[in-house]
Amino acid sequence: MSTTAETTRNGVSTQQLYGTLDAIKADPSIAKFQFRARNRWIDGAHNRSTIQQFYGAGQEDGSRDEAFVIDAGEPAILLGTDTGANPAEFLLHALAACLTTSLVYVAAARKVRLTEVRSTLTGDMDVRGALGLSDEVRNGFTNIRVSFDVKGDATEEKIQEVVARACRRSAVYDMVTNGVPVAVEVASA
Amino acid sequence: MSTTAETTRNGVSTQQLYGTLDAIKADPSIAKFQFRARNRWIDGAHNRSTIQQFYGAGQEDGSRDEAFVIDAGEPAILLGTDTGANPAEFLLHALAACLTTSLVYVAAARKVRLTEVRSTLTGDMDVRGALGLSDEVRNGFTNIRVSFDVKGDATEEKIQEVVARACRRSAVYDMVTNGVPVAVEVASA
Repeated sequence: MSTTAETTRNGVSTQQLYGTLDAIKADPSIAKFQFRARNRWIDGAHNRSTIQQFYGAGQEDGSRDEAFVIDAGEPAILLGTDTGANPAEFLLHALAACLTTSLVYVAAARKVRLTEVRSTLTGDMDVRGALGLSDEVRNGFTNIRVSFDVKGDATEEKIQEVVARACRRSAVYDMVTNGVPVAVEVASA
Repeated sequence: MSTTAETTRNGVSTQQLYGTLDAIKADPSIAKFQFRARNRWIDGAHNRSTIQQFYGAGQEDGSRDEAFVIDAGEPAILLGTDTGANPAEFLLHALAACLTTSLVYVAAARKVRLTEVRSTLTGDMDVRGALGLSDEVRNGFTNIRVSFDVKGDATEEKIQEVVARACRRSAVYDMVTNGVPVAVEVASA
């Protein structure tokens, strides 16, 4: 087998993966990251986030030439004009994306070659909470269900194990299941 | 003043807003919503969510002619090729978008005309958690800071009050601060 075949699995450079792990083990301070988003209201339920720079590996990252520009909205029934997915749907996307990437990285590290990863996420919400009509229901989803369909050159047991480890290591899964302290400050003039 | 000027504030139809609140008060069962995302792995850290249908107001919604297609990725230093914002950044976007829309709706209901709403969100993360190198740090953000800049025809005190109420009613703020039960199941074949 060629070196290239050995060092890339599931589109992940295992050489770079192990190199990153070794570098962090040698200097844990480079593991500190800060991610950011700037958001601007446009009109009604339409607002737009701009995401570009972040801090990581001991420095301000300048590798992204352009910002990611992401629009949010609401459907008509929630008083918007569908200018983008709504915020709760974006939370499902964040969770799906993080679990999937964790799964792909864990599989790469454990020598499992994947051929397909699909997932469907659903979240149930009683909008009386967010609309201020009831204090007896919560504002957000009462629960989220994630259904994965994973194919690859491994036993079903091994795939279950990789998915379980992906959940235990996913940043967004941690945040969505356990919560994060959020501090909000306002400047007005 | 014309009727139009009276019924739209901050791009939100207050007529429709009050109509929605009255309809839900009359029949709380229509407040049950279900939002969904489907995700497909493409390669490495690149995956794509498709978001279209949802259930709400007693029926399957069919108002969106096209799906929202949202790509995720990771920057080079986290083993990706910047095919999209990363999942943690999408969580910041979801939070920013939800707080902003809540703020705009609350202001519309309280007769506050807004001229500008901007926010900057930052989240700190020690990636040793997500990379499986330490059980002493969490996988997700240790904390998130949201800094709002809000302008409109109201006193600073009133604007502070509107932002505080937006936080108390935001679906994503609730989920991110308090957490949500997530059930993951896997089918493999």
